[in-house]
Amino acid sequence: MKSLRYSFAKIAAIVLVLFFGLNSVVSQEQNSQKNDATWIWYPGDFEIWLSNKMQVRRTEREAVFPPLWRYYSPFPLVTFQAEVDLPEADEVSIHSEGSFQLLVDGKQIYGQPQSITIEPGKHTISLKVYNQEFLPSIYIDGKYVNSDESWIVTNEDKLWIDEEGNAQQSGTPWKAVGSWKFDSPDENPSDFRLETEPWNAKKREKIGDGELVDFGKETFGYIKVHGLEGEGQLSLYYGESREEAMDSARCETLDYIQFDGNQPTEYTHDESKAFRYVQVQADPSIKYDSISMLYEYLPLDYRGEFNSSDELLNEIWDVSAYTMHLTSREFFIDGIKRDRWIWSGDAYQSYLMNYYLFFDNNSVERTLLSLRGKEPVTAHINTIMDYSLYWFVGIYDYYIYTGDTKFIKQFYPRMKSLMEFVLGRRNEAGFLEPLEGDWVFIDWADGLPKTGEVSFEQMLLARSLEAMAKSAEIAGEKSDQTKYENLAADMQKKLFEVFWDEQNQVMKHQRIDGEMQDIVTRYANMFGIFFNYFNEEQQQSVKEKVLLNDDILQITTPYMRFYELEALCAIGEQEYVLDEIRDYWGGMLELGATSFWEKYDPSDKGDEHLSMYGRPYGKSLCHAWGASPIYLFGKYYLGVQPTAPGYSEYEIRPNLGGLEWMEGKVPTPNGDIEVYASEKEIRVTGVEGKGNLIFKSKSKPKSSEEILEIGDSEYQVQIIPSEELTISYEAI
Amino acid sequence: MKSLRYSFAKIAAIVLVLFFGLNSVVSQEQNSQKNDATWIWYPGDFEIWLSNKMQVRRTEREAVFPPLWRYYSPFPLVTFQAEVDLPEADEVSIHSEGSFQLLVDGKQIYGQPQSITIEPGKHTISLKVYNQEFLPSIYIDGKYVNSDESWIVTNEDKLWIDEEGNAQQSGTPWKAVGSWKFDSPDENPSDFRLETEPWNAKKREKIGDGELVDFGKETFGYIKVHGLEGEGQLSLYYGESREEAMDSARCETLDYIQFDGNQPTEYTHDESKAFRYVQVQADPSIKYDSISMLYEYLPLDYRGEFNSSDELLNEIWDVSAYTMHLTSREFFIDGIKRDRWIWSGDAYQSYLMNYYLFFDNNSVERTLLSLRGKEPVTAHINTIMDYSLYWFVGIYDYYIYTGDTKFIKQFYPRMKSLMEFVLGRRNEAGFLEPLEGDWVFIDWADGLPKTGEVSFEQMLLARSLEAMAKSAEIAGEKSDQTKYENLAADMQKKLFEVFWDEQNQVMKHQRIDGEMQDIVTRYANMFGIFFNYFNEEQQQSVKEKVLLNDDILQITTPYMRFYELEALCAIGEQEYVLDEIRDYWGGMLELGATSFWEKYDPSDKGDEHLSMYGRPYGKSLCHAWGASPIYLFGKYYLGVQPTAPGYSEYEIRPNLGGLEWMEGKVPTPNGDIEVYASEKEIRVTGVEGKGNLIFKSKSKPKSSEEILEIGDSEYQVQIIPSEELTISYEAI
Repeated sequence: MKSLRYSFAKIAAIVLVLFFGLNSVVSQEQNSQKNDATWIWYPGDFEIWLSNKMQVRRTEREAVFPPLWRYYSPFPLVTFQAEVDLPEADEVSIHSEGSFQLLVDGKQIYGQPQSITIEPGKHTISLKVYNQEFLPSIYIDGKYVNSDESWIVTNEDKLWIDEEGNAQQSGTPWKAVGSWKFDSPDENPSDFRLETEPWNAKKREKIGDGELVDFGKETFGYIKVHGLEGEGQLSLYYGESREEAMDSARCETLDYIQFDGNQPTEYTHDESKAFRYVQVQADPSIKYDSISMLYEYLPLDYRGEFNSSDELLNEIWDVSAYTMHLTSREFFIDGIKRDRWIWSGDAYQSYLMNYYLFFDNNSVERTLLSLRGKEPVTAHINTIMDYSLYWFVGIYDYYIYTGDTKFIKQFYPRMKSLMEFVLGRRNEAGFLEPLEGDWVFIDWADGLPKTGEVSFEQMLLARSLEAMAKSAEIAGEKSDQTKYENLAADMQKKLFEVFWDEQNQVMKHQRIDGEMQDIVTRYANMFGIFFNYFNEEQQQSVKEKVLLNDDILQITTPYMRFYELEALCAIGEQEYVLDEIRDYWGGMLELGATSFWEKYDPSDKGDEHLSMYGRPYGKSLCHAWGASPIYLFGKYYLGVQPTAPGYSEYEIRPNLGGLEWMEGKVPTPNGDIEVYASEKEIRVTGVEGKGNLIFKSKSKPKSSEEILEIGDSEYQVQIIPSEELTISYEAI
Repeated sequence: MKSLRYSFAKIAAIVLVLFFGLNSVVSQEQNSQKNDATWIWYPGDFEIWLSNKMQVRRTEREAVFPPLWRYYSPFPLVTFQAEVDLPEADEVSIHSEGSFQLLVDGKQIYGQPQSITIEPGKHTISLKVYNQEFLPSIYIDGKYVNSDESWIVTNEDKLWIDEEGNAQQSGTPWKAVGSWKFDSPDENPSDFRLETEPWNAKKREKIGDGELVDFGKETFGYIKVHGLEGEGQLSLYYGESREEAMDSARCETLDYIQFDGNQPTEYTHDESKAFRYVQVQADPSIKYDSISMLYEYLPLDYRGEFNSSDELLNEIWDVSAYTMHLTSREFFIDGIKRDRWIWSGDAYQSYLMNYYLFFDNNSVERTLLSLRGKEPVTAHINTIMDYSLYWFVGIYDYYIYTGDTKFIKQFYPRMKSLMEFVLGRRNEAGFLEPLEGDWVFIDWADGLPKTGEVSFEQMLLARSLEAMAKSAEIAGEKSDQTKYENLAADMQKKLFEVFWDEQNQVMKHQRIDGEMQDIVTRYANMFGIFFNYFNEEQQQSVKEKVLLNDDILQITTPYMRFYELEALCAIGEQEYVLDEIRDYWGGMLELGATSFWEKYDPSDKGDEHLSMYGRPYGKSLCHAWGASPIYLFGKYYLGVQPTAPGYSEYEIRPNLGGLEWMEGKVPTPNGDIEVYASEKEIRVTGVEGKGNLIFKSKSKPKSSEEILEIGDSEYQVQIIPSEELTISYEAI
């Protein structure tokens, strides 16, 4: 498995060079005289359009299976505008998805020209584009005039011509445009597809008159049939497991493909599926030589790395990275077989893992935008209360990891309207309690109470309000900032007043109709730790009485394992957590997992591991939330995290957790941080920004750099960007 | 011109029989055992989709010219649902625009079946349909199970499957479905087109190497070229006037059509235009025999009629009816050349005219829905303050004329959210005053002040609040009803407190920053009359000091002439108004009008009549608001109007206005009311409902029915439905 991530990284790099490299070289040459042109659209609309399209691609036994929440749409009519000042006449070519009206300095230009000469001097250029079917977008390419991030756009230009023929305009809600990577005029946004590459089967096995094809590991893409001849039906039964592909009557996905004899000899199916195995059964009238597939993926660079003295952990990291890549597609989705949807709680974990693997900002932004949709807000994100709240926290983390403020400034109004929706659903006590249509998820766990006021939801709300306060500050909304700061402080205070059990020193789970329930669960207790809501004493109590207490309802999804293990790491239980990872993720590997699962219960036997939702193969065997070791290894073992936005300040706190040695990389906006640690030596290479290495040592450590003693056996060394720092020490 | 309306009515009738007749005969036969199936969709979404499409068909010299306001979109993902109880198994065929997921009793059915057998008994049938490009819609056809008005639909079904496989659903916002007349499975809503019929040119005239083709009157449709051969360009310059078609450099609409030699000999252009004349210029390499057109129209029945002893008035009625029909298309639009858009103020007049001509409810509903769009409300309708307000009043009138409560019940939430938007834009004094982005239109009139608090807008708001109170009552929203009743009363009170000039006994026009301006205009004064906001004394003063006072700013658009003449009629000035109509509409006819104009100023000379908006042919020569005589003749001369919703009660108050005789019909939900009146005789045939004939007579009138004397020379007779009532009397 080890070589996997490298091959992916290479593929991604090659593809990037092939598709964008040449272009970007050209662009850089031109940069001295002009900006690069790119396709632009109303911000967030491409993401909404693409996510609508992607999420209905889920099928169950040939029925489409669209999401249960509302779909928004791109604005079908938008006006793009730019102010230019030209030193000479500019010959500008115009590309548009949709019919358009072109105005230069408020004057309508004849027809729908493909190019136009704009005279020297200052001009206002406006294009009003209509496209109901896809996405109104434009690509304008001149020497000086180029569609790029400097353009603005509106969905209601309010430009009218009075009786005298004079243009009147006021109150137009202009926004900065959206764009991605469509930098060539013939790369229409509506043609967007992920990349593909051919993969061969690893094994064929005769099954009746057909065969079972094994691709060796979990994968995603389009079945190809080679040497195809004849007329009739080809049946494909997909399986993430062998059992599923063999069970044609009950497998979750299948395709019945009808051929009329006129198909090409080499046929590629047009619907993508997730599978490792596919059972192929052809009518006797159909012949073919072999089956292969087109593996479909988003080209991403594997910037994060992890390697250690424990081969099992290395394999867990590799399979986690592969799981993460399979689910990092048009958007961060939950699972590739099921649901192929964008769930905010699942995506929140993908954001965090992304910061330790791809550091692909656009994937985070795309996912946040598709989840949020537009106005009006009529339900929680994905209809789930906690999932609305993760969305805010996700934006805050995005700011901390990337330092980007543009996203918040652009979309602050959507943050605010969602928060106002959330606040409007508080009960009289000021707590969130599910109203009709609100789904409280928390976790899949047998018998988990979810009604009334649940402490976990209030804690997420408190954190969301903090995120809103910071975002309001970034957006320059002073009065909102004050309002949300007060609300956040108040919520945090009330949370402890009501749910903190002073006697037992734990956070209680639930209050119903004013009656505190005698239930303690892990959820609020573990979030309280890494949200830093507990003092030292409270932390210790929670650790002993909840986190390490087997009598408290156990967690069986990798989803909540993520936070449980994070909380333990945050209080220094790295060694304990490594054992848990070896058991839990190692347990899946032992059962043959080639990607990590939606749920894993070690007490299950045989086929029980495949079933969920009352269906024999209902469980997703490739689920993003299974990939959390990426995050844990990067943040809590290599120990790298930003302490100010965008790694302008950061810390490295290596923690071997009992390993002999480990090494790895953590991506940042300013390059990759490299860390090596053994029991005797630490070597780090930092990046631009104020970085500190912090570590514990039994004896006084040595280095060519100045070492500060900052606590009991704890030391700190300042990191000089791009220079390797070596410490000799003695790990505790 | 006289025969026109009959020929149209006949055409419409024939088309209706051809396209819907057979179907409806079949349906009626089946009615005993089943309902009729029809295509259904999310309510209002077809109208939004179609109006988006229609309104971008406006072109100016080959540039598309979309509206200045925001476009909404259909929901791309909706769930249809019905509860059925079957006495026997039903074989049901399924037609869908969009891919779908079918659930019967919550259980997903394999694939996307074209038909399915549903077992006897009670079932819940759900179809979740995805269609981003067009409109998600379905047509379900069985013996018992049929898609019809009984189905419900939602844009967020919130149906999720828990860990155990159990379906969970709450808080789903179900709505009654929308439908129109797509009653056959192959009549997909997205294929909707108006009807067409071939029309020949009336005259050809050589112009250089080309020709000028005259269709004899204003028309709308698609140019056809007969005997077409060769390769090259054909240029079409359209004109509502001869001058415009001749002026190839400045005409408002044109088409340059490129032929590659492979076109059919009989070529129909795919873009429709408004014109009477078209100048055709072909490249020498292009040959053709002749030009004709496909006249495009909405099939409508001319139910209203008017005929009198004055041929000029008869012609005015006919040309008004033709103008009204030309502008009654997919929706009630303003003008057929320009703007081809749906404007709320213009449409409001079309609604009223419709009640005296076609009585086509669906055209009113379609137009109201397309104007309103969906949530969120971010601007006034058409961005115009008064146009938001007409929308409410239009709904109230719709209820009064048709008696329909379904529309209000269904769309009350959209009424409320628009009203809340409007109320949110009041100033501290509680008056509407334009904020950024608000256009105050009132009328096209030189020097009309429109800033600050304008009395006209406050009066429309008062009326709109009354409409909201009534609508809240119909929708069963008691607390809203009280709220809007209070707001309406308060607004009416404040209107008089602030704007009524006690000294001069007129309504003032405007207050700016608390300073009453010394301006009196006709607008609020004339609306106050037919809104019944003035007492007798106030009415008389307004009549003398404003309406009949030439020093008050004159009205030059048929748009406000509509209300001015209505106000005069409402206070009994029918004879004066007839003279005005003869002058004003007769003036346009004298200038050769074959449809009525956007604006007419008798003092203009020659080409001045064609120009507007600073453009030589900017004026629309076929504008809906030019057709108001239809309304005036029906309501104030034939004298027919409902006095309770849907003509459950109505009055007929014939008023000859100096004519020797008149006769006509007024459509109602229960059939057509017929009226004949001369100076000596009145004959009426009423319809179902409590009808009263009210008239004045110099001498005591005679009839076989009982005559009540109800005032000074005023008499009343009760009308017996479907029986002709004859009165001998002596007109005053």
